Amino acid sequence: MRIKLPTICIILEVILIILFGVFVRYDKETDAKKWHAHHDHNGSEIENDFYYRYPSFQDVHVMIFIGFGFLMTFLKRYGFGSVAFNFLIASFALQWATLMQGFFHGMGSDGKIHIGIESMINADFCTGAVLISFGGILGKTSPVQLLVMAVFEVTLFAINEYIILNIVEAKDAGGSMTIHTFGAYFGLVVSRILYRPHLEKSRHREGSVYHSDLFAMIGTIYLWMFWPSFNSAITAHGDSQHRTVMNTYYSLAACTLATFALSSLLSEEGKLDMVHIQNASLAGGVAVGTAGEMMLTPFGSMIVGSLAGIISTLGYKFLTPILDSKLKIQDTCGIHNLHGMPGILGAIVGAITASMATHDIYGDG
Amino acid sequence: MRIKLPTICIILEVILIILFGVFVRYDKETDAKKWHAHHDHNGSEIENDFYYRYPSFQDVHVMIFIGFGFLMTFLKRYGFGSVAFNFLIASFALQWATLMQGFFHGMGSDGKIHIGIESMINADFCTGAVLISFGGILGKTSPVQLLVMAVFEVTLFAINEYIILNIVEAKDAGGSMTIHTFGAYFGLVVSRILYRPHLEKSRHREGSVYHSDLFAMIGTIYLWMFWPSFNSAITAHGDSQHRTVMNTYYSLAACTLATFALSSLLSEEGKLDMVHIQNASLAGGVAVGTAGEMMLTPFGSMIVGSLAGIISTLGYKFLTPILDSKLKIQDTCGIHNLHGMPGILGAIVGAITASMATHDIYGDG
Amino acid sequence: MRIKLPTICIILEVILIILFGVFVRYDKETDAKKWHAHHDHNGSEIENDFYYRYPSFQDVHVMIFIGFGFLMTFLKRYGFGSVAFNFLIASFALQWATLMQGFFHGMGSDGKIHIGIESMINADFCTGAVLISFGGILGKTSPVQLLVMAVFEVTLFAINEYIILNIVEAKDAGGSMTIHTFGAYFGLVVSRILYRPHLEKSRHREGSVYHSDLFAMIGTIYLWMFWPSFNSAITAHGDSQHRTVMNTYYSLAACTLATFALSSLLSEEGKLDMVHIQNASLAGGVAVGTAGEMMLTPFGSMIVGSLAGIISTLGYKFLTPILDSKLKIQDTCGIHNLHGMPGILGAIVGAITASMATHDIYGDG
Repeated sequence: MRIKLPTICIILEVILIILFGVFVRYDKETDAKKWHAHHDHNGSEIENDFYYRYPSFQDVHVMIFIGFGFLMTFLKRYGFGSVAFNFLIASFALQWATLMQGFFHGMGSDGKIHIGIESMINADFCTGAVLISFGGILGKTSPVQLLVMAVFEVTLFAINEYIILNIVEAKDAGGSMTIHTFGAYFGLVVSRILYRPHLEKSRHREGSVYHSDLFAMIGTIYLWMFWPSFNSAITAHGDSQHRTVMNTYYSLAACTLATFALSSLLSEEGKLDMVHIQNASLAGGVAVGTAGEMMLTPFGSMIVGSLAGIISTLGYKFLTPILDSKLKIQDTCGIHNLHGMPGILGAIVGAITASMATHDIYGDG
Repeated sequence: MRIKLPTICIILEVILIILFGVFVRYDKETDAKKWHAHHDHNGSEIENDFYYRYPSFQDVHVMIFIGFGFLMTFLKRYGFGSVAFNFLIASFALQWATLMQGFFHGMGSDGKIHIGIESMINADFCTGAVLISFGGILGKTSPVQLLVMAVFEVTLFAINEYIILNIVEAKDAGGSMTIHTFGAYFGLVVSRILYRPHLEKSRHREGSVYHSDLFAMIGTIYLWMFWPSFNSAITAHGDSQHRTVMNTYYSLAACTLATFALSSLLSEEGKLDMVHIQNASLAGGVAVGTAGEMMLTPFGSMIVGSLAGIISTLGYKFLTPILDSKLKIQDTCGIHNLHGMPGILGAIVGAITASMATHDIYGDG
Repeated sequence: MRIKLPTICIILEVILIILFGVFVRYDKETDAKKWHAHHDHNGSEIENDFYYRYPSFQDVHVMIFIGFGFLMTFLKRYGFGSVAFNFLIASFALQWATLMQGFFHGMGSDGKIHIGIESMINADFCTGAVLISFGGILGKTSPVQLLVMAVFEVTLFAINEYIILNIVEAKDAGGSMTIHTFGAYFGLVVSRILYRPHLEKSRHREGSVYHSDLFAMIGTIYLWMFWPSFNSAITAHGDSQHRTVMNTYYSLAACTLATFALSSLLSEEGKLDMVHIQNASLAGGVAVGTAGEMMLTPFGSMIVGSLAGIISTLGYKFLTPILDSKLKIQDTCGIHNLHGMPGILGAIVGAITASMATHDIYGDG
């Protein structure tokens, strides 16, 4: 590790700096000259995209670094490592994602990648997918392996995103498909490859893990609170951002009740399982990632959220042990339950909602 | 618990979904068709209420889920339960509040409740009152009892709010009266009903409670930092939001100095009492809940904040033991000191400040 | 302590209240009458400076109270004290800073200090400098000494700020010079004065410090995430705020990779040193404090960030022990490495970037 980790970090950062120097430029909202020459904003600085998106960006940023980082501290002997490695790979992935997303679907006619707040959000989104995959292999990899995984996953993410958004022309602002489903199944494949039959049952938590669970709850709660910002961060300005936030808010609230209900019901003594509370409560955010910006209605969002909570909790109870014993996939954080299945549910809900769209509902917008 | 908790969660969520389906609709800022047909915004999407209120909403959301949740982790054996039950009741209460506040004072002429960011903030506010009451009975109730309490409290909250805001026509944007005073006294009544003479002194903290206190400080600091957002979240756009934030900021800073002073003075060895620091420092936010949007001046705010810190710390030292021994009210978190008395102070300050309002001070606004 | 702390708190707060009463007034964005009479905003309330700066202000606020507070919890026996004393001095300093910054460079023609969101951000910035100095003497002072230090440091800060911004006419929106370099060297001087030869090596952390490190990581991550808001909080509206955020974002990401690389390289067994991760990763934010608002380019920011991470980590490894043994400066948190040297680097980068500014790059803005 003494040689490997410094070597890979330095090589990657040097490559990043060179490629940024060659390809990356300010866009018309971050470039001093272009912004001042640009008169769409009727003279008001508030029309800069910064004011539409920066609060959402910072919420997403908190989800990536605090949310994912602390959610993974539940493993008793791995708390500091989770947060620190999360910090390292995320810092790398967001730089690499800026380039990959630029190359595959953000190149200007001048052969340069022009960046601003929206590309920063997209870079954080792509980073999110890498961290989801990290959850599937937590406790089994070195930081060097994680960085190598990130190099490949970010590249594949950008290609997949290009296919879904530009070729299939699906809408997926909250990333049910592009982020959650992709991140989960990529992680499960890696987890299968890294299968170790004699791995000490890392989920088994004996002894004083009390504080680990409280740290993990910090992660859960931040993800839960800011999920409305995640789903709305890159939707259209105005009613779309507003509506997405509201749909996600009600979906998550309903999902939480469903999770508590199922968790208690499935337990032998009626005790709540902390793993369910920490994870399945979030499935409602994943499941409205695609349809959240549509006219799903609060009522529809609550149905989707409840379903997501039920599916996810059932997954933790019944599917995770099967994946481990039959398919040799040790899904440490249960990413299949939190991101995989709810992501697929989200894609289905999105397709149904989109198919029901009429001019009467959406107007001329 | 195995049967009861799942049953009540499922029944409540099904009722919520049905009532939302029947009564709840997007408002003109969240509905795609209405927003695009609506020309008040001069064509600029930034005039959507979302951009005026969403950052404040998220701060309030953090106060509700992280602030209240972690503030209550100070009880040594109850940390995870505090956060988890807080999460459950808040998720329920915000849905139920949307309906109750709609029924009692938000019904449109079409018999529907139209919702957007402002109703989401109001739902979170009502949830705040329920969590204040929870603080008064912490450690004495099951999640089922808490859900039942929330059903009744939210309903009563909406009625009380209707009386204060629509009949008495008082202004109370930060909820000194509607949220803090109501939540505190409701909680004290429930605490009296649940009185258990042989309750192990839950406040007594022996052993290694070091980390519990650091977790509780996370709650305190978040409540303290975001209180300006709480008080300003639903005030009028422009100078009102701005002024409320500033008044609350200075009130809290002054309150903190007063609390440290009193806490040290009242202790026998001059040691700071963590309970005071964690709670009384916040009283300054409660006490400017009503007057914060008025022309209270920073100087006035600092006087009010100092008074609130003094009253609250004195309450913890002298009143809480009396409530327990004489009135049989075991106020676990001291909600009477943090929300009850400062809320009444806030109402008085609001009445005085309002009575001093002149055209010369407020202009034509 | 029983007499001293209450006495100083009460005297200071009374002085603050009197001076606020005499000198401090609402500015044209927070005063009801002035705002409504003020027609620059074309009738739109969104043009109130509140909407341009409040989200950034709250991020800065989190950095001051959570970021600095929890970063200093790494000392095993001092966690609660760090957070609580941080809370106390910050609450005092922000009030005192409002006055000092007003007296030295914010007095209106009517002899009054007019305040709004920008002065609140500046007050928090000045508080940041005091907390940086606190980091240099952590574990060696009583709260009374800290308050006395804050009285002097805030005053000197305002004078130094006046000299740099108004006389030298340098630009320093993110405070590389005014905040970080000033705070660090002020703290080092105080640390030298308070030198205690027999001080138990407070950096030495034996036993179960696991949770202390996780709490400290909360501080680190919040500082890291919100540094873009810190650097951009008082830059010009529009492209300047937007560009500063982006430059800081990439500088920090590059800095983190450099820090992990160096930390692993310098360790004997290749193990990461938590102190480096917790601190040096942040140096990239300090180093673009001056140049961040300029056309530094993302590529330039990444070079600066990498350099800052390298310098800072080297400082922790080689310079801190020398400062202690040779110069008798016990820099508990390593503020010289995190704020001192990166602050000087930031000033140099700022000077170079400013000297390269041309009309062709910046346009007519």
